[in-house]
Amino acid sequence: MNHAARPWGHSNSTHQKQPRRQLHLNVNILNAGFLASAWRAPASNPRAFIDIAHYLQTARAAEKGKLDALFLADQVSIADRIDLRPINALEPTVLLAALATATTHIGLIATASTTYNEPYNLARRLASLDHISAGRVAWNIVTSSDPAASGNFGLNGPLAHETRYARADEFVDVVKALWASWESDALIADASSGRFADTAKVHAINHQGPIFQVRGPLNVPRTPQGWPVLVQAGGSGDGRGLAARHADAVFSASQSLEEASAYAQDLRQRAAALGRDPASLIVLPGLTTILGGTEQEAQQRRQALLDLTDLDYGISRVASILGISADSLHPDRELPTSLPEPTVGGHTFYYATVAKARSQGLTVRQLIHELAGGTGHRVITGTPEQVADDIELWFKSGAADGFNLMPDVIADGVPQFVEGVVPLLQQRGLFRTDYAETTLRERFGLGLPH
Amino acid sequence: MNHAARPWGHSNSTHQKQPRRQLHLNVNILNAGFLASAWRAPASNPRAFIDIAHYLQTARAAEKGKLDALFLADQVSIADRIDLRPINALEPTVLLAALATATTHIGLIATASTTYNEPYNLARRLASLDHISAGRVAWNIVTSSDPAASGNFGLNGPLAHETRYARADEFVDVVKALWASWESDALIADASSGRFADTAKVHAINHQGPIFQVRGPLNVPRTPQGWPVLVQAGGSGDGRGLAARHADAVFSASQSLEEASAYAQDLRQRAAALGRDPASLIVLPGLTTILGGTEQEAQQRRQALLDLTDLDYGISRVASILGISADSLHPDRELPTSLPEPTVGGHTFYYATVAKARSQGLTVRQLIHELAGGTGHRVITGTPEQVADDIELWFKSGAADGFNLMPDVIADGVPQFVEGVVPLLQQRGLFRTDYAETTLRERFGLGLPH
Repeated sequence: MNHAARPWGHSNSTHQKQPRRQLHLNVNILNAGFLASAWRAPASNPRAFIDIAHYLQTARAAEKGKLDALFLADQVSIADRIDLRPINALEPTVLLAALATATTHIGLIATASTTYNEPYNLARRLASLDHISAGRVAWNIVTSSDPAASGNFGLNGPLAHETRYARADEFVDVVKALWASWESDALIADASSGRFADTAKVHAINHQGPIFQVRGPLNVPRTPQGWPVLVQAGGSGDGRGLAARHADAVFSASQSLEEASAYAQDLRQRAAALGRDPASLIVLPGLTTILGGTEQEAQQRRQALLDLTDLDYGISRVASILGISADSLHPDRELPTSLPEPTVGGHTFYYATVAKARSQGLTVRQLIHELAGGTGHRVITGTPEQVADDIELWFKSGAADGFNLMPDVIADGVPQFVEGVVPLLQQRGLFRTDYAETTLRERFGLGLPH
Repeated sequence: MNHAARPWGHSNSTHQKQPRRQLHLNVNILNAGFLASAWRAPASNPRAFIDIAHYLQTARAAEKGKLDALFLADQVSIADRIDLRPINALEPTVLLAALATATTHIGLIATASTTYNEPYNLARRLASLDHISAGRVAWNIVTSSDPAASGNFGLNGPLAHETRYARADEFVDVVKALWASWESDALIADASSGRFADTAKVHAINHQGPIFQVRGPLNVPRTPQGWPVLVQAGGSGDGRGLAARHADAVFSASQSLEEASAYAQDLRQRAAALGRDPASLIVLPGLTTILGGTEQEAQQRRQALLDLTDLDYGISRVASILGISADSLHPDRELPTSLPEPTVGGHTFYYATVAKARSQGLTVRQLIHELAGGTGHRVITGTPEQVADDIELWFKSGAADGFNLMPDVIADGVPQFVEGVVPLLQQRGLFRTDYAETTLRERFGLGLPH
């Protein structure tokens, strides 16, 4: 593997032609959809968030659309207003395993926290999932700053930002070492000789770090992808550092093309400074789509979904992103001029939200409307053509290698995207018309891990 | 629910007729089969232990035979001789989730350790699996005494027996409280009013124990079974105590009818002393079957499997059960007269193995042969009729409510049992001819948890 830094998108390698850049589209299938009122939409089963039939149907629709991967966000607490909307309930590795045997090609990206897991257990579950899915698994590495989660694990509050990221960094090192503890040819499985594994190729890792002491080896042989693809989603300096060191793909949150370009550039520079090929890091901003056959239909769909959303919910969501009390927000005033720094976490949404509000001088009510209910991710409301145009622009400009799709309402939003937007992208030669690769790692254009 | 103790099998309850006792048959589908050489048998794919196709095929065969449940044992280390045989590699909750969407009726029993998990994470994964499978999940509660496992979790050796069981007891209490943190009607999911959950019916558990401090509530709503069925497998005094307090079903290891009867009686007395209905506790001894169309064919199959097993492997397996060095065993001598107490764990197999060797005056080589390679579970070698007779005898005598089947070789052993033994049991009116119940809890004749 060539570790020399080279400008992104331009190959200095003489022994290998740089493959054509590919557009990547993952879809976030968390509960009913990305808008707070998604569960109340006509197409939705209100109990879909715990209904495997809903997830199976969504997974098959996404696979029909040749999307890269399913993505499951996660929290380890009740992190939203359950009086008003569903939460992410089903644990991602378990839910994705259930979807693995009902699909054949689509990737499976599981979010799991380094803050409240043990590296051995998580390494094992993800390796198991990689075997079960024949190499379609990625781990979205997150840290947990949510105060409610800390109380579920014996703590009185979240770990400090630096402590969380130090733990995350060591955690990922241990997990990688465990995944690599079986050499790729350690398994012999020769029935005639009776030799099952070559124990000289199965290694203890003997990790002795400040936080973790793990002997190994893992009790799961080397997986089809060498190890699962690594994804990271943190926007803070520490999050970017973690991504630059470990991630194959990054899920970001950017409201504008300029912001997204600056983010991608910063991340690639950080990766290059660590000796990594910056082109090997895929940047995928979140994108909520609200589709309609005409622009007017799309706007009507958006308005109908917003009409079903409590203003109170929108306010509490924005307050939570900003780390302030809901009382300090007035629907018809702008954001308070003085806001606390996002010290405990949630940098990504914080900056995206503040930038949006300040740059356009929005009141809280307008901000909630612009954010389609109070999320921090970018929202496009429009026709399939408009969405395809936007995707093409961002992709060709280099601001994004693709998107982490977050449909307004999963139940009909995924089919709408697959039937409306995907064919346009295919006609423009931007998106695959069939799955060519076996593993998610290959689909993302990544080499095997060392 | 009537908490008064009553003699097992005889109802004192006036308001409810005691249902007819049902025979229960689970099948342990760990890696290639229960005999050490199973992976080398002609029917086996040597790499089956990490091949989802193998597990899917086995699950479907077991469901065709109307068996109660699939069972996955587990360890969190490489706990066997990987140079000579496969291990339990794929993590049970993940593997069973993959099987859940490929089956419709059969129960799914996941082993998970209380020693190296966090109660919140495990409660959540099992609750997720219960939703995904529509109420077919059980948790086999174990503690980990394996020294190799301790090194994977920052310890220099296993926890002391008492510490492990104190932790297990508190762990199960926390998990139950988390499962019960949503009242069964807390989820409203009313799209028209917009009310999603009644937060007055979703409770923090505020557990403040010596080992765990967990606030809750769980971020998963009440599951189809109220909570997963609880299974326990420990044979020590502490293990029996844990089973009497918490378990709906117990997996035991008994070499003789007398031993099994005494065990079952002891367990039911312990449950009764705690105010539980002793008839509500199902006792399922392990049973390895080696089947043949004639007795001679069965013996030939056994001999062929033993011929493929290293004597060294058998010796190291017996040594490991007894907690001694392999050097202290000579193939042609009896077990050493003085053996250490089984202080660190593994009481069940220890006593079963020693009893077998001493009662029959077996040499180590003979013991290994009798145990079909060195396991601690009972082995029947014979025709389907002989196996059906044995099952009928144990069931009718009350020594067992059924069995935890451990086929010699999974790949053809499960179909042999399903096609050979099950029809005989059905003809005798001992075993269901179709699934009648929706949940595993109902199939086991258990009420909803309080």
